Amino acid sequence: MTQKDLFSDFSIHNLPFGIFSLPNQKPRVGVAYKDRVIDLYNLAQKEGWDMDIEVLQQPHLNDFIALGKTVTQKVRSDVKDLINSIPDIELKNISVSILTVQMHLPIRVGDYTDFYSSLEHATNVGKLFRDPKQALLPNWKHLPVAYHGRVSRVVPSGTTIHRPQGQIVKNKGANPEFRATEKLDFELELGCIIGKENPLGERIPIEEAHSYIFGLVLCNDWSARDIQQWEYVPLGPFLGKNFATSISPWVIPIEALEPFKVPAPKQDTPVLDYLHSKERWNYDIQLEVWLQTQAGQEYQICKSNTKYLYWTLEQQIAHHSSNGCPLRVGDLLASGTISGKQPQSYGSLLELTKNGTAPLQFSNAEKRSFIEDGDQIRFRATAKKDAYTLGFGTLENTVNPIK
Amino acid sequence: MTQKDLFSDFSIHNLPFGIFSLPNQKPRVGVAYKDRVIDLYNLAQKEGWDMDIEVLQQPHLNDFIALGKTVTQKVRSDVKDLINSIPDIELKNISVSILTVQMHLPIRVGDYTDFYSSLEHATNVGKLFRDPKQALLPNWKHLPVAYHGRVSRVVPSGTTIHRPQGQIVKNKGANPEFRATEKLDFELELGCIIGKENPLGERIPIEEAHSYIFGLVLCNDWSARDIQQWEYVPLGPFLGKNFATSISPWVIPIEALEPFKVPAPKQDTPVLDYLHSKERWNYDIQLEVWLQTQAGQEYQICKSNTKYLYWTLEQQIAHHSSNGCPLRVGDLLASGTISGKQPQSYGSLLELTKNGTAPLQFSNAEKRSFIEDGDQIRFRATAKKDAYTLGFGTLENTVNPIK
Repeated sequence: MTQKDLFSDFSIHNLPFGIFSLPNQKPRVGVAYKDRVIDLYNLAQKEGWDMDIEVLQQPHLNDFIALGKTVTQKVRSDVKDLINSIPDIELKNISVSILTVQMHLPIRVGDYTDFYSSLEHATNVGKLFRDPKQALLPNWKHLPVAYHGRVSRVVPSGTTIHRPQGQIVKNKGANPEFRATEKLDFELELGCIIGKENPLGERIPIEEAHSYIFGLVLCNDWSARDIQQWEYVPLGPFLGKNFATSISPWVIPIEALEPFKVPAPKQDTPVLDYLHSKERWNYDIQLEVWLQTQAGQEYQICKSNTKYLYWTLEQQIAHHSSNGCPLRVGDLLASGTISGKQPQSYGSLLELTKNGTAPLQFSNAEKRSFIEDGDQIRFRATAKKDAYTLGFGTLENTVNPIK
Repeated sequence: MTQKDLFSDFSIHNLPFGIFSLPNQKPRVGVAYKDRVIDLYNLAQKEGWDMDIEVLQQPHLNDFIALGKTVTQKVRSDVKDLINSIPDIELKNISVSILTVQMHLPIRVGDYTDFYSSLEHATNVGKLFRDPKQALLPNWKHLPVAYHGRVSRVVPSGTTIHRPQGQIVKNKGANPEFRATEKLDFELELGCIIGKENPLGERIPIEEAHSYIFGLVLCNDWSARDIQQWEYVPLGPFLGKNFATSISPWVIPIEALEPFKVPAPKQDTPVLDYLHSKERWNYDIQLEVWLQTQAGQEYQICKSNTKYLYWTLEQQIAHHSSNGCPLRVGDLLASGTISGKQPQSYGSLLELTKNGTAPLQFSNAEKRSFIEDGDQIRFRATAKKDAYTLGFGTLENTVNPIK
């Protein structure tokens, strides 16, 4: 991937929001446009925008998002008009080079929920660990299964991931040992940033669920499969997951993705009314996973698409709030690993290598069952239609040995 | 319980911290002493304390706790000296009646983890839902099992709990229906408030774990058993739990509980080194659960004790951070339901009524399988030794119908 690819992600049709900083300056709100980051606070001052501009000086997007879509969409449309009305040379006065900024976690995450919304992923995992003939558990097609993850370990792209240690059972029936994971894995996911709150105790009707979405990011729910496998019954994943979850720095406003809507896969099991809507949409966003070795070799190891998801964002939101659970601005709802039907579309090494039994063979005779120290995992997401492309930038993290 | 009982909870040996407010004033930090709440900001100003007193004006204890034990213990000891040195009549000038204040959530919770540390509870649940002969799963005695709960639904004592709706399977094999839970339950738990952070990627040695505890609260991890039972495989509880978790308003400093330390139950299965310490302590704190009906009848339905816990707080902390997961100031680590050996010590209606099959019979011919609308659930915790008592105050919430 070249820098040119990256810059083409952020065309006038995208204009994502993020938190950036320059050396010795505090993090604040920016908009990415081509190879530039527009400093929104400076721009707002200059243009005299009629809004609470202090939110643009915060080190997270939460307060900005909390102003509501009327404001955030107006800002985006004003930025668009401005870019269209001034020459590139003037644009430079209100922006900085994207190559000079440090990007931060865009959101102060309140709660992090991880769904399990890909039929192909749930089926693959069920086949590996449970009954291959009944890979899906009885509840799976009735509700979008999910668990709560840990907020203190949601980190931005670029953060080094240290290989975790934990209790691992090397041979079935043996006692556990405390050792470094030998099954470090990524999970290719889409992250949804919640844009408004529902009142305590009140559920969000599925027809209104879309209006609760502020935007999307890429999400890697790092996993230690051997730790997870021993610990996860009966209360679900814990230390096998909570050492790291990374997200991409630019939040793509959901409105920018409107042109890429496609019908979601049919659901062959009827769902209850609160999960039912006349139309169900996904987004046609191509996903890529690249593994770069310490020596600098790059391999594309997965090509998937968010359109494969069985449960839509709106169904996830309606379900999550169905018991009156309050969603808050800045909550992160991740999709779960996104796998497709073809083996090369599987969104984790667990699936790509059949739990390590069928390692990936690379062209230079290197192979991988799971992630090794020094490997960098990079996610890319791009949507293409007619003449234009829209991208998410990259989510990339390198794995180091145990700290 | 009379008000006198409550006041005796907060003797000079306790001095817990909380967040209180008076009508039309902002919430801030207070210390409970008998029937008074001492306003720490006012006191600090008056006495000219050498510390950042702005933390005492915050609506949560996090910033105060983050100053470290040297500061928080000095504050406690200064308050103690002051109380001992002035007549009660002067104390009134620096405090307000506890009956006039509103108490708030004491902590801005970063992450909420719920353990499953009672052997008796895990055994009882295993017998009800899995194989009665092998009630404990193979991992249970090797590690303190836990899951992440939802922060947005941690609420203070006094908050009304609305009966949640959700997917419920009425008869085995039938399709789920969306309806109000018929198995609303409490879980009697101890909550541990974390007092300092560990660096990213670095685990907390068990010998140091105690120093990470700021204090303890009572915790009710409200549960809808029928929703939980259908949804919880394979990723653990979600909507069956995340509609409400309530905690008591006064955080008892761990140092105040030192006189009540007792040896923890022996662990018959050897644990790995990172969970092993020469001495393992619990606290001898008596727990009571009271159910008050809408008509005002009160019944004590459970009497348990925190000393029964199989996994200690230090083991929980060492395990939680063993993969490098960072704990942060204000994290809430709950113990899981605390049950003892005797049936009357079971810490949930699930266990007390054998999943509703053996309802509790009350003296006026009323009975309960699970919680009904209008019921109030009240937890009490008291430690007694020689001449003195120390109490946690109460944690009480009333259940209303679906909102």
